[in-house]
Amino acid sequence: MQRTYINELNDKIDKKVRIDGFVERNRNLQYVAFLVIKDKTNKVQVTVEKETATKEILDIVDKLTPNSTVTIRGVVKENAKVKLRGLEIIPEEIIITSLSKEELPLNYNDLDSTSLDNRLDNRFLDLRNEKNGFIFEVQSTLVEALREYLYQKHFTEIHTPKLIKTASESGSSVFEVKYFKDKAYLAQSPQFYKQMAMASGMERVFEVAPAFRAENSNSYRHATEFTSFDLEMSYIDSYKDVLQLEEEMLVYALKKVKEKWGEKIKELYGVEVVVPTTPFPVIKLPDLCKELEKRYGYKVPEEEIGDMNAEMEKLTSRYAMEEFKHEFIFITDFSKAKRPFYHMRKEDVPQGYDLVWKGCEITTGAQREHRYDILLEQCKEKGLGKDVEFYLEFFKYGCPPHGGLAIGIDRLTMLLLGLPSVKETMFLFRGPSRITP
Amino acid sequence: MQRTYINELNDKIDKKVRIDGFVERNRNLQYVAFLVIKDKTNKVQVTVEKETATKEILDIVDKLTPNSTVTIRGVVKENAKVKLRGLEIIPEEIIITSLSKEELPLNYNDLDSTSLDNRLDNRFLDLRNEKNGFIFEVQSTLVEALREYLYQKHFTEIHTPKLIKTASESGSSVFEVKYFKDKAYLAQSPQFYKQMAMASGMERVFEVAPAFRAENSNSYRHATEFTSFDLEMSYIDSYKDVLQLEEEMLVYALKKVKEKWGEKIKELYGVEVVVPTTPFPVIKLPDLCKELEKRYGYKVPEEEIGDMNAEMEKLTSRYAMEEFKHEFIFITDFSKAKRPFYHMRKEDVPQGYDLVWKGCEITTGAQREHRYDILLEQCKEKGLGKDVEFYLEFFKYGCPPHGGLAIGIDRLTMLLLGLPSVKETMFLFRGPSRITP
Repeated sequence: MQRTYINELNDKIDKKVRIDGFVERNRNLQYVAFLVIKDKTNKVQVTVEKETATKEILDIVDKLTPNSTVTIRGVVKENAKVKLRGLEIIPEEIIITSLSKEELPLNYNDLDSTSLDNRLDNRFLDLRNEKNGFIFEVQSTLVEALREYLYQKHFTEIHTPKLIKTASESGSSVFEVKYFKDKAYLAQSPQFYKQMAMASGMERVFEVAPAFRAENSNSYRHATEFTSFDLEMSYIDSYKDVLQLEEEMLVYALKKVKEKWGEKIKELYGVEVVVPTTPFPVIKLPDLCKELEKRYGYKVPEEEIGDMNAEMEKLTSRYAMEEFKHEFIFITDFSKAKRPFYHMRKEDVPQGYDLVWKGCEITTGAQREHRYDILLEQCKEKGLGKDVEFYLEFFKYGCPPHGGLAIGIDRLTMLLLGLPSVKETMFLFRGPSRITP
Repeated sequence: MQRTYINELNDKIDKKVRIDGFVERNRNLQYVAFLVIKDKTNKVQVTVEKETATKEILDIVDKLTPNSTVTIRGVVKENAKVKLRGLEIIPEEIIITSLSKEELPLNYNDLDSTSLDNRLDNRFLDLRNEKNGFIFEVQSTLVEALREYLYQKHFTEIHTPKLIKTASESGSSVFEVKYFKDKAYLAQSPQFYKQMAMASGMERVFEVAPAFRAENSNSYRHATEFTSFDLEMSYIDSYKDVLQLEEEMLVYALKKVKEKWGEKIKELYGVEVVVPTTPFPVIKLPDLCKELEKRYGYKVPEEEIGDMNAEMEKLTSRYAMEEFKHEFIFITDFSKAKRPFYHMRKEDVPQGYDLVWKGCEITTGAQREHRYDILLEQCKEKGLGKDVEFYLEFFKYGCPPHGGLAIGIDRLTMLLLGLPSVKETMFLFRGPSRITP
């Protein structure tokens, strides 16, 4: 017999159905037992009248612990007395498909009274909490929509290797891997490879894949492994083409998320999903610094001039809301000292941007330097040598002008739902002191 | 001025356009120069009449090497004399966006005369070959369609960690990573984690992500890193639910690929994409062995009884074509000694299957053992201990019956296009003696 999802039961009144789910509650009274069964879609009450129930059902009800899973066949009845949706199932058969122990190591219905570490240790139970499990429904829809937009714009999905021979970009913060008798590293980003696709004539590519950073930092927004959404596109005229694609892509994705989950996000998280208007506001970093000082008395520390820091990002969003009533803001004109060697420069200014949303940077985007001689110069200036030789090859035999961006999916989800940390929005968080479970 | 894709030029006769692309040829004659420009969509001739062209254009034509990239603004003209699509562009402006060196390390238009190693060393040029670049268009469409099917069936996408604490499944063939002062490993598959999602009540999940195998094997179908398409689903009655989902999903995806690329695949690879009929044929391994012996005189080597090997897979496809006229065939009833501990067994027979396509295994699917006590027994029988303790926890507090499968995307693409090796269908192949570029 085919399973009926619990949210479809209203269409099955007086019909026989099969449901499958977890036992949320078993209120086993003298003359009656009330079970609450939960599947991914909803909950329903199953009512066992003890006088009329079979011996098999009575035996099962007596041993059925919460968190067990069951298959139930029975008839759906309307019953105005039942608080839960005004309906119940009168069971003809209950099968225990798995029996849970009584005591759980985590009370996932009361997470405030436990530590985050205990939650992460028992993540498989932590995710049974309605709010927590729901995060991944939202994330799945979000990524689906981002990809959908790119397919429409003629992007091709690629899968670049995470095992790499050279310590990429800078050599710092890379995990080392024993590779047979040799060693390898884990890619920090697909940067070089998505640019390789441009040299190959693929024109527009994207990738959604893990990225690895061996950084010993324990902030709310860093992880040693995270999911990176990367894209790269050829034949752009400037970084503004990348910026424009990004705002359109985000509008598209947030619209889809709002349509599908907007109400539930509001109900569970108290957050209104705002579909932003385009164009997003754009400000040059030097102008932004002046504004932040004038408005909020913020002075950029000497060593961070030409760059952003976490505090500035918070203030920048405050400024964007006050000045433009906008959740998003692009910042351009960073200092070349603070940007990687492969960003194109024009009159010494890197041709790229950061995008800040709700007080947090979510993207760096840029036009890349595709002219071999200039790229080589910028490479030397940053003191890079052997590690990038293979990469420099890509630019000797023709390579279209191109640019791209990267978005951290976990961080994007965190901001979308107003959550305090990426530890909440990663299926299993990885940090300097956590690689379990 | 906005770019026009070259395959759209037919709609722009006598209009001024901008095109962007690689220079395929520069036939620079005394009175005229013929350029052939190529973008991702097509090729077009650009005709420079030397008597009427500007000095700027003449200078550019004199130095323009093949493989350079250009932006050209000019007028599209019909010209029956032009073999290439009967049209040409008369340029008003040519901008060299990158100038290629004369000599390439790889002649990507004549790959038969070079070694595979040279091709892989210069993969960024190798992929400029029309056939090779096209592989990734097909792969992208294939994966898009597989995902699309699963979204329709209420699957949620997850991203599980690739950095893991324990050497997973068996301890053999795992890459070791220096993890700060500790060590970690690279996940061979998301097996345990997608099952964790079942214990969390996520019901149906999938993931497309890299998987890592430290196997020192150099076959046409193995790699140390590959892209794995994994799914897991709850509340199944038997492995047959998984099998059925897989055949429907493959039909859906192959149909999409055929619609979009069928003709081009035929033209470039001489391969007819066949959308299979359902149900696919299914045969028990012992029965298959009898057939292979009877029909082809094949005898399974003693140590491989209860399992398949590469030779058997080839013969199995021959059998499937002869007996069922079908490209696909499911094989069930493997020996428990040859299957992992987490496959459910019924009367000692593992409740799973392999799927063979065109002489090669593409999937192992199975119902998983979700009953803690039995799982623990099967674990011990295989001699597994500490490494799977965290995994066994998932089954103590209720876990729905579930099953799933994995498909190697690179291998699937190889079979789809009739290519000799996954080295061709991976953006950048990784093997025991190759982690570059």
